[in-house]
Amino acid sequence: MTSAPYQLGVADAAREVREGSLSPVSLAQALLDRIDALESTLHAWVTIDREQVLTDARQREDEITREQVRGPLHGIPVGLKDIFYTEGMLTSACSRILADFVPDHDAACVAKLKEAGAIVLGKAVTTEFASSDPSPSRNAWNLAHTPGGSSSGSSVAVSTGMVAAALGSQTGGSTCRPAAYNGIVGLKPTYGRISRHGVVALSWSLDTVGILVRSVTDAALMLQAMAGHDPRDGGSAAAPVPNYLAQMDALDRPPRLGVLRGFFYDRSSEEVRNHTDSVAERLAAAGATVEEIPLPASFASAHACQRIVSSVEAAAVHEEHFRTRAEEYGPRIRNSIEMGMLVPAVSYLQAQRLRREFQHDMITALSSVDAALLPSAPAPAPRDLNTTGDAVFQVPWTSSGLPSVSIPSGLSADGLPLGVQLAGLPLQEGPLLGVARWCETALDVNLWPPDYA
Amino acid sequence: MTSAPYQLGVADAAREVREGSLSPVSLAQALLDRIDALESTLHAWVTIDREQVLTDARQREDEITREQVRGPLHGIPVGLKDIFYTEGMLTSACSRILADFVPDHDAACVAKLKEAGAIVLGKAVTTEFASSDPSPSRNAWNLAHTPGGSSSGSSVAVSTGMVAAALGSQTGGSTCRPAAYNGIVGLKPTYGRISRHGVVALSWSLDTVGILVRSVTDAALMLQAMAGHDPRDGGSAAAPVPNYLAQMDALDRPPRLGVLRGFFYDRSSEEVRNHTDSVAERLAAAGATVEEIPLPASFASAHACQRIVSSVEAAAVHEEHFRTRAEEYGPRIRNSIEMGMLVPAVSYLQAQRLRREFQHDMITALSSVDAALLPSAPAPAPRDLNTTGDAVFQVPWTSSGLPSVSIPSGLSADGLPLGVQLAGLPLQEGPLLGVARWCETALDVNLWPPDYA
Repeated sequence: MTSAPYQLGVADAAREVREGSLSPVSLAQALLDRIDALESTLHAWVTIDREQVLTDARQREDEITREQVRGPLHGIPVGLKDIFYTEGMLTSACSRILADFVPDHDAACVAKLKEAGAIVLGKAVTTEFASSDPSPSRNAWNLAHTPGGSSSGSSVAVSTGMVAAALGSQTGGSTCRPAAYNGIVGLKPTYGRISRHGVVALSWSLDTVGILVRSVTDAALMLQAMAGHDPRDGGSAAAPVPNYLAQMDALDRPPRLGVLRGFFYDRSSEEVRNHTDSVAERLAAAGATVEEIPLPASFASAHACQRIVSSVEAAAVHEEHFRTRAEEYGPRIRNSIEMGMLVPAVSYLQAQRLRREFQHDMITALSSVDAALLPSAPAPAPRDLNTTGDAVFQVPWTSSGLPSVSIPSGLSADGLPLGVQLAGLPLQEGPLLGVARWCETALDVNLWPPDYA
Repeated sequence: MTSAPYQLGVADAAREVREGSLSPVSLAQALLDRIDALESTLHAWVTIDREQVLTDARQREDEITREQVRGPLHGIPVGLKDIFYTEGMLTSACSRILADFVPDHDAACVAKLKEAGAIVLGKAVTTEFASSDPSPSRNAWNLAHTPGGSSSGSSVAVSTGMVAAALGSQTGGSTCRPAAYNGIVGLKPTYGRISRHGVVALSWSLDTVGILVRSVTDAALMLQAMAGHDPRDGGSAAAPVPNYLAQMDALDRPPRLGVLRGFFYDRSSEEVRNHTDSVAERLAAAGATVEEIPLPASFASAHACQRIVSSVEAAAVHEEHFRTRAEEYGPRIRNSIEMGMLVPAVSYLQAQRLRREFQHDMITALSSVDAALLPSAPAPAPRDLNTTGDAVFQVPWTSSGLPSVSIPSGLSADGLPLGVQLAGLPLQEGPLLGVARWCETALDVNLWPPDYA
């Protein structure tokens, strides 16, 4: 073993556990030690039940001894954004409204992770109700910078080796943006691919379970464990689950990439524009076909539609509590709920209709390439703890429901992580991950925060 | 052949066509003759292309000669409410807005009927945009009474033998109510079971393609030809299509029926209450287990939710035209659109949430019986051509999306048809039709309007 246990990704750690060269207890203990060392600085966690973690790890270890491997994640600790229901464990969504909420069951996707052998390491900090009021988490690359949101704790924890994989969610830009800000891999699957049964809702037609990891392969492993139809989630996709790893491996040629400039370059800093161009050049040099593809006209309303829909749906979710406890909400989510309360139903339905048109047009736009390539954010994580940064480069993928993945692609002049996003067709996460892994290999960028490696 | 061709139901006519004892051309001509005799009195049709009908019939006849049977509806003429797209044929929805609309393709369900061998006989009168402004159609049982709505032409045509089967739709009560008012069988399948691709929309989360026929078996045949998933319809159910005829035949014992009184009896005339009780007694005498089942508490909001949702969605559909052409809409749909424009989005979403709760509760309420039994309407067709009658007994099934079927059960003191409805579980049309056919056989009520038999 050349890496410390906390440096191992999911795939490597799982293999070592299965082969008996890594004890689940040592792995869990290594992560708990790491958390003990970093947590007071980074504020990534809400709840960690150390005894339960070690009990679970010992049980996984016993099972290995008896050759009872539960699944591909046997013995792997995972972090959960504090919006995922955990049986008997506080699930507060970092809100005052749910400050005492202890679910009596696990979220469907958490149950699936456990079935695959994973251990719940703890509940990670989220912005309040996964909206945009900043959380106490700090960016490990520079404590004066935001880690992004809303999956702030999950992203910080993964970026610093406190855990190899954590669940986040994305309603605007809450998975791929913090992934980029923290130098890790973020996967927002297709809307409806992972059940949200037992996930605190923000906006039912946008909320998507996200995956935060340190490699594309690990994203595929996590997705494989959780994907599937669930009739308890009204937005769940009734489509069969493919073998994502096999689909990822099936890419046997350099990909065709469609660079999206236009809006994305107009909104980016010069550094990000130049960086994205240089990424495209490096990928082309490695063999990829890189061409610019145009954005459809319906792209123009994608952000407005997401804003209308998310505010209305948040208002509907929170209506009852908000009537009597509005002052217990943070200013940003409060503003969104108040705006949502005033939107006429016809405007909401028109926004939903425009979203469907945009999805249709975006599918057409992507049909000539293997994936779209674009910057992950307009700039690196802002030096401002009163913001969670700008979700504007994620919103088109959340709004259209198309899968997207952010991979680290370099560092800014200030030493902050930069990333690029790849986006693909609905329910085609396998091929998209194949492209992402090809790019990951070609770019060969592996980032650890300087003081925490 | 003991019956005139126009008296044959779908199953009998199709068998005779297949066996060569009935020529598709004679059948089509018999129906056209029937229409010629009755149409000036009953106003059931918008468009009939006699030449095309006979051309199609001759083609079906040639195919029989060559032993090329297209499917179970080979050579059977069907009527289509004027909201179903027909390639090259006016589809006006009896509105001024679509007065010149000629689609370039058939609705998905129309294409499926043709694949099964059916012939489009013509486009039947609907209320404007399938809403509640009365149409010119008359009730064949008494011309001073409404035929109901919105599938008025389809119901009148089937009740008088102008055609054995016609398509309608139901957003409030537009299939099972006119079926009952005209003494025929109406089937509203589960929401999402038949594609609405190419059907003029009124309310996307309520609109359901309906079937108007003269027997339960014919309803099953028509459903079989059209049911199925269609990704082009966002509300389409991604469930496999069973063999409905086999499921219907599988009922090998008298059914358990749950009578719904409460609301339905409170709103019914004394005659309808007594009639429904006597129907229940006749069915019990024939062997059915009949018990009263309670309505869930969430039933209380079912009608309000349907009203909110249908008005909002109609407003969204018509927003663009309505901005400049409001005066071209009838007063009732105009009122609904104007109301829908004023509903806040949060109220709309809460109505949708309450609908899901009601569906869940109704499924639980029906779980102990084979079907619910209730009157089809509060009273027979009103003697008032300025109304289409009261949809209040259909709305719970449209709002919950559960399948329901109305079968004729007798005549009122005034000589007008009475009916009872049976309702079942989502996507369980086969078992529901089995129960309906058992009741149809036990009741042995076969109605033809006195002057048109």
